Amino acid sequence: MELLTKTIAAIKPLDAAAMTAAKTRQADLTKPEGSLGRLEDLSIQLAGIQAKASPAVEKKAMFTLAGDHGVVKEGVGNWPQEVTAQMVMNFLHGGAAINVLCRVAGARIIFADLGVASDLPGDPQLIVKKVGYGTGNICQGAAMTRDQAVQAIEAGIELVNAEADKGLDLAGTGDMGIGNTTASSAVFAAITGRSPTEVTGRGTGLSDEQLAAKIGLVKKALDVNQPNAKDALDVLSKVGGFEIGGLAGVMLGAAARRVPVVIDGFISGAAALIAVTLAPQVKDYLIPAHTSAEAGHQSMLNSLGFDPYLDLGLRLGEGTGAALGIIICEAAARTLNEMATFAEAGVSEGE
Amino acid sequence: MELLTKTIAAIKPLDAAAMTAAKTRQADLTKPEGSLGRLEDLSIQLAGIQAKASPAVEKKAMFTLAGDHGVVKEGVGNWPQEVTAQMVMNFLHGGAAINVLCRVAGARIIFADLGVASDLPGDPQLIVKKVGYGTGNICQGAAMTRDQAVQAIEAGIELVNAEADKGLDLAGTGDMGIGNTTASSAVFAAITGRSPTEVTGRGTGLSDEQLAAKIGLVKKALDVNQPNAKDALDVLSKVGGFEIGGLAGVMLGAAARRVPVVIDGFISGAAALIAVTLAPQVKDYLIPAHTSAEAGHQSMLNSLGFDPYLDLGLRLGEGTGAALGIIICEAAARTLNEMATFAEAGVSEGE
Repeated sequence: MELLTKTIAAIKPLDAAAMTAAKTRQADLTKPEGSLGRLEDLSIQLAGIQAKASPAVEKKAMFTLAGDHGVVKEGVGNWPQEVTAQMVMNFLHGGAAINVLCRVAGARIIFADLGVASDLPGDPQLIVKKVGYGTGNICQGAAMTRDQAVQAIEAGIELVNAEADKGLDLAGTGDMGIGNTTASSAVFAAITGRSPTEVTGRGTGLSDEQLAAKIGLVKKALDVNQPNAKDALDVLSKVGGFEIGGLAGVMLGAAARRVPVVIDGFISGAAALIAVTLAPQVKDYLIPAHTSAEAGHQSMLNSLGFDPYLDLGLRLGEGTGAALGIIICEAAARTLNEMATFAEAGVSEGE
Repeated sequence: MELLTKTIAAIKPLDAAAMTAAKTRQADLTKPEGSLGRLEDLSIQLAGIQAKASPAVEKKAMFTLAGDHGVVKEGVGNWPQEVTAQMVMNFLHGGAAINVLCRVAGARIIFADLGVASDLPGDPQLIVKKVGYGTGNICQGAAMTRDQAVQAIEAGIELVNAEADKGLDLAGTGDMGIGNTTASSAVFAAITGRSPTEVTGRGTGLSDEQLAAKIGLVKKALDVNQPNAKDALDVLSKVGGFEIGGLAGVMLGAAARRVPVVIDGFISGAAALIAVTLAPQVKDYLIPAHTSAEAGHQSMLNSLGFDPYLDLGLRLGEGTGAALGIIICEAAARTLNEMATFAEAGVSEGE
């Protein structure tokens, strides 16, 4: 708990001086003012987060965290639990979508096992921060103990601190965990009070009948556990997931180190709700990458007050949307940093 | 005219076999089917364009074409005409937004002078294909002769042919030309029959009063010239621009060489209307990058039947939106090409 408390205390407001400097520079660059649209505002946010008038975007890391979910015992979803571990192996061999998109984005990937149900073979690319072998079935009781919730969040903080020590300009978040849209829906409903119907989507591709059953499971998880909306650790422990806690920790840890965090879709959004409930000031450090095709994600974004940059119909997770969002951040920062001013270029200014 | 005729004749339908192969592979990749959303459809289009099951996206080139517009004599806009030449110099020194975003996208840039009003200093990076020293004032008469319209389009075809000979997997289009939103609005209205009010926006940032005056100029240009909607060369010569013709040529030339063309905003859209009117089959080769903040662009996209990939409030031109679109194409193609299949990765498939 000490690391979590210390991390939250270290999160400061955005740097106003850096933001003013970035804003002033945007107006001097060789383009009509405002013509880079949302990239301009994003560049100013990045400056405020890093407390640098010229935000750096060279060292980028994706945090893709894996965990299993006891709720799969209820028969929710189309994919067997072992796919979580199989997909982690696919990550380590470089064959998943997140590997490809991080190559495109020029980002390294931190793969961490927060709670896969089996032991994975040792691999130098895999960081093991196992809090448990899958969560408990949230339809029968709590996902984890309160101590485990803290442990999951602190594992995420440790992951980001280790990377920040090596040099980190920009972080992304992603997830792997069969069953984790169900847990994320439950977290979303628990924190915002929205109905199970509104917060629950088709995940990796459910039929109407399966969707109705999943809504029933979310409702049951809330009824059985009665999570306290004001207490994010209570919500995480009762209906969350190990990787969801870890991602909340990545967000908190990154904010404490003044590293912008590009967040992916529905599962990262649930983690953001946990993080923001623990420390509202973390919100300014989060950059919503995209609107996911998962039903409920738009409503989740509204709850968070987020207007994402991309809308490409993705619903894959792993951090795939965040990887594309990292590229948008790079475009925003580099136009701010690298464009010539009117004076430098000898271009006449508009009236 | 021979090059144009030959080029149009060389544009073939998309390759159905490559598209089927790409579609089949998408279903075998380690992800829930359809979970990469619009990237999946885009990858299949790229395969069809290139006639390759695994579309290549290594060799990327942005075509940023410059030209001046006689209509600036009417006092439209906030920027003096010499800014066109000054911005071309800024391009050559690497200080403009398009330089930065093409560095992010890993694309080379082909800068060409299609009709800047002054002679630019010689520079190995600048290709001179001058059709004239700025167009005629479209409120007083034609922008150019019909021969010049053909010459502008063929110059664009030559530019893309030269790059395709060197190796070109993906092209982008962009523009520089003070006054060219006015010409583009006139082209848009002439081809689609929409009203001057619907097609005219604030360009680089007009006031309400200036916008009303600009709408009046578009109306006058149409009244004076009476362009024939069915005859794209008539429209281009009467109310178009040299760089607009050049960009239409880039699109036609690229399609003839099976190179996908990512098109930028309002000016590239006007060029696309010219290209599609000349050769409807070119449309399948065009990839709309983004929705511009320029009023009328959404309506233009609707006319073209395009649903762009990005909406970031850009209204800068130069190819800036297309540069980001090139990155989306790279993400689409590389996930198709580089992801592992379920069989390769030993991952269980969903039901």
